[in-house]
Parts: sequence; C-alpha cells; structure tokens
Amino acid sequence: MSLPAEFALIARHFRPLAGAGALDLLDDAAVLDLPPGRRLVIAADAMVEGVHYLPDDPPETVGRKLLRVNLSDMAAMGAVPLGYLMTTAFSRGIADSWIAGFAQGLAEDQDAFGVTVLGGDTAVTPGPTCLSLTILGTVAPDAVLRRVGARAGDDIWVSGTIGDGLLGLRVLRGEVPADAEGHLARRYRLPQPRLALGQAIATVAHAGLDVSDGLVQDLGHLCRAAGCGAEIAAAEVPLSPAARALLARDAALLPALLTGGDDYELLFTAAPDAAAAVRDAAATAGIPVRRIGRMLAGPTEVVARDASGAVLDVARGGWSHF
Amino acid sequence: MSLPAEFALIARHFRPLAGAGALDLLDDAAVLDLPPGRRLVIAADAMVEGVHYLPDDPPETVGRKLLRVNLSDMAAMGAVPLGYLMTTAFSRGIADSWIAGFAQGLAEDQDAFGVTVLGGDTAVTPGPTCLSLTILGTVAPDAVLRRVGARAGDDIWVSGTIGDGLLGLRVLRGEVPADAEGHLARRYRLPQPRLALGQAIATVAHAGLDVSDGLVQDLGHLCRAAGCGAEIAAAEVPLSPAARALLARDAALLPALLTGGDDYELLFTAAPDAAAAVRDAAATAGIPVRRIGRMLAGPTEVVARDASGAVLDVARGGWSHF
Repeated sequence: MSLPAEFALIARHFRPLAGAGALDLLDDAAVLDLPPGRRLVIAADAMVEGVHYLPDDPPETVGRKLLRVNLSDMAAMGAVPLGYLMTTAFSRGIADSWIAGFAQGLAEDQDAFGVTVLGGDTAVTPGPTCLSLTILGTVAPDAVLRRVGARAGDDIWVSGTIGDGLLGLRVLRGEVPADAEGHLARRYRLPQPRLALGQAIATVAHAGLDVSDGLVQDLGHLCRAAGCGAEIAAAEVPLSPAARALLARDAALLPALLTGGDDYELLFTAAPDAAAAVRDAAATAGIPVRRIGRMLAGPTEVVARDASGAVLDVARGGWSHF
Repeated sequence: MSLPAEFALIARHFRPLAGAGALDLLDDAAVLDLPPGRRLVIAADAMVEGVHYLPDDPPETVGRKLLRVNLSDMAAMGAVPLGYLMTTAFSRGIADSWIAGFAQGLAEDQDAFGVTVLGGDTAVTPGPTCLSLTILGTVAPDAVLRRVGARAGDDIWVSGTIGDGLLGLRVLRGEVPADAEGHLARRYRLPQPRLALGQAIATVAHAGLDVSDGLVQDLGHLCRAAGCGAEIAAAEVPLSPAARALLARDAALLPALLTGGDDYELLFTAAPDAAAAVRDAAATAGIPVRRIGRMLAGPTEVVARDASGAVLDVARGGWSHF
C-alpha cells in the first residue's frame, strides 16, 4: 500500500528533526520524562504568512523565527528549553523546496538552541500558511521568572536593543531605507531569544517578560500585574546604530520604536540595590542590559519622557494584529 | 492605557477556561508539575476551516471537535489527559459570537473530560480559520500504548463503529440522505475520544492507535511498525444502524467506510488468549469493542475480505488532505 503525500512529507522533512521522546514521529503522541526536580514550562505561539512574516521571507528564517519567538517565551520565564511540537497548515500548492528550506532553518536552530521536535501535525489550507509551535522547557521550582512581582521603586531593565524589529519590517516593506549591513531586516526575521539572560536573572529580578507586543505595552503588563506605574526615559532605551541613524533623520519615529512589536528582548525589574547583581548576570550571559526607568507607586500607567522631560505620546500602546 | 482587542478577546472568552498552572493566561508560559511517577504524553493536532470542519458547523462543535481529536491521541496512548494549549488564527472579521460559541464548546468539554486550558496564542488570518491544539497527559511508565508491538497471530480489535465520520461529512455536504436521528452528522462533528478504553487496554494490548486517517490506513501503520501483515473481515467491522442503512442502499460504499477518516475509534491488537481480558477492559470502560481480524506473518499489507471471502479494493489506503 502506498502512503499518501502527507506521510512522505513528514518522513522527508520533519522526521530528521525528531529527538528523544518523539518516538520517530510514528506514534500518536510523544512520551518523555522531565529531569528530576524540575517544573514543566510550556507555551505556544502561532505565525501566519503575511501577518507575522512576509510571503517572500526566506523559508529558513521563517522556520527559525517560529522556533525563536517561542524560545523567547522560555527565556522570559527563566526556563531551559527541552523540545517542541509543531502544527503546520501549509498553503495549498506550496513548493516542496519551501518546506525543505523551512525544515532546514529549524534544523539549524535546533542545533543552536539544543532542542528537537517531539511531535505535531501537518495539514494544508486554501489560505495563507498558518504555523503553530508549542515549546516545552523546565525550570527549578525556585527560579521561575513571572510577570507579577514588580515593586514601586524597582529599576526597569531591558536587554539588547529596541525597535529594530519594527524598523526591519518597514525596511522590508520599502517604507524606510535599508541599512548597509542589513541589520534591521535580519532582526525582524531572526529575533534573538535571550535564554542565558533569562536563566541568569530569574532569581535576581522581581518580574519580567519578553517584549513581543512593544516596549510600552509590555511594560504595561508588568504594571497591571503589580498594581503600580512606570516611568521610562526614552533617551535611555537602547537603540542599534541602524535605528539611531533612522531616528536622526526623523525624530518623530521615537514613539513608534517604543511601541513597535517583534523586539523579543527581555524587560524586567529589580530592586535598585540589585543593580550590580543584574550587571553580573548580564555579563555572565554575555547579553547587554540597560536601566531605562523606574516602577512607581500610583496608577497602572506607563509614562515615557523624552530627553527634555516632556511626556511622549505612546497612547497607541503597542502592537496588535486585531 | 487601553488594551488592544486581542487582549480583550482572550480575557472575555479564554481566561474563564484557564486552570491550575495557566497563571491566568497572564504570563509568557504555563508552569506545572506532573503527578509523581508519571511520564508526560504530549501531542498536537490542527484543524482548518473548510478542510477539517465545515464553515457552517456550529462553533460549539468546532471547539469540542478540536479538543476531542487531541483527546483521542491521549486515548491512543493509554494516557490520562491533563490540559491543553491552543493557538487560534481566526479568519479576519469573524463574529465575536462565533468565538463565544467556540469557547462555550471548549468549556463544556473541559468539564466532560476534566481538562483546562494552560496557554496559547490568538491571531488573525486573511484566510480561513486555522486552529491548533496541543494536549498534555500523563501515563504510568509501564502502561504506554504504542503503535509498535503487534505480533503475527494477534487478534485485531476496534472500538465503537467505523465509517460514521465519513458518512456524516457526506450527509452535511448533501451527498447522501441524512438519518432521522442526525447520528451521522453528530459523529462527524463530535468524535468520542475513547479515553477509558485506552487506559483499560494499555497493559493488555500489544499495540494500538486511534483511527483518524481510515481503518485500513491506520491498520497499515500497525503492520509497518510490526513488520507483518493483517487481514480483516469487512463483515465483522462494526457499523452503526445509520451506516448499515446507507450500505443496504449502496453496497459499493463498503470500501469507503473502511478507508474514510474521522472515526476516532481505537484500533489495537492483542494475543488471542487475551480476548477475555480485552472484553473485561471494554466492559469496565463501558465502550463496545469488536474483533475484526488477525495479524499475519508476511508482507506489511492490509487485506480486507467481504462476506464471500473476496478481497475488497481498499488500495486508496486512507484519507489525506494532501
């Protein structure tokens, strides 16, 4: 009996990615054991063609981004990733070479991040491709980084640089000029999950998350969870040289950088007297961090001030596909 | 700061479904502990509007089917379900009442099957709605039901009735007349995950899976995993009264019933001298089972014979959306 195309596709492209517990993707489910004494951490994120990635993005980076946005959720919890399940609804008539490139990207990042595929499902859709990934990780019981827990008076810290994802999207859409190095487009297509940093700060920070919806909006999540406010100094928010160059041409970009999505940096708060411990943790992880503001007693709102002390209009409050 | 529509949607429809470990869907991931001594079992299945369900299926049954096809994977492993994560890419402009109905269906089946939502993601797509669900369960280390392990000489057993899902789809498409009770359409829309049976037979059966691609094709999976063949007696395959009535009008339907998808019954093999134990397990679970054939030494092929002993043409070999 010949097998239908779906099974051949899984065998050709996805079975080589399977790891321990996946039962070679031949069973109805994966079976695995957690390392003793660790808690299970689990999250899921979806990506839709034309919404979360561009139809002409290379398939390798689409696969890598799908895995990385989920790994970023593990970073945000201080977790060590273990593996993932994936469901793919490929656009009907998609080229086999696209799926091969997508799987190749996954394979590269599996090696880079030490994870393997555990299971999933493959289907087709008459619409644009819909991808969904569920990431599993583990964490020590006393080292879970949560959104809740920020306190008035805490310093607010952020990793890496902010705004590159938004600008990368605008570059790829031809709305702003590209930087010569291609940094911005690369940042949109290949976020950097800050796993080592998340693990290093989990017991130092009071609260944290990854910036996926926009810095201001995600800081708002920390405020609502804590029942307090926040004030950030826009001039302290770390920007890449490419972002600085665009901002120098158009100062009105600043609120967009603070509210654009797709950063996948870690945003967290810690007591002021923990600043040295935060810097030590960041140095150990090899990931730059910057102190950008302070949590405040009072209403659960985020205020961003420019270098002159004026309040910036960031009321749009972040990115939503709805 | 006002929250965008995505957060309001999650708060309104999905947060009421959240259970222990979900952290109220407010964090980047769920955190949970497995019951001591149990292994984690995890699977994911996707459903696409117009492919896996009909655009005019009631949203309640779409939500319930999404959960149930995944619960069926837990049943196939002998696992006890624990909870689930879900990603939804809703068709842009979908009615809020549709999402409310979808969530209501999930709520009903959460109660019926003792699971809660642990996390996920909500997005929109310009195409048809794409739904993905990842189900978690646990199993005792010595009670995992696998696809591999069938032996030549084993009896082949199947639960419930076969072919109703295919016929239900044909009824809903207007291709065959509906039965007065609406049994067939209901079976297409609301599969019955055989959890109690899977748990009861896990240590009695040699191998098993759930029939989602078609009886013949899924039996082929057991054959390939075992390196042997199988012969089934079509007359022994259990059919519902509604399916029997349609078959009486059109005997040529029989191969379609044996290869149609969406049955979500359990198919398993056991040693002939375990037949009484199988019947006891089925009685305990309250789910009917029928012995339909035997595993054979020889090539990995499935032969289905009709009542006269003639070999039926089932070469199509099952359902694939590709």
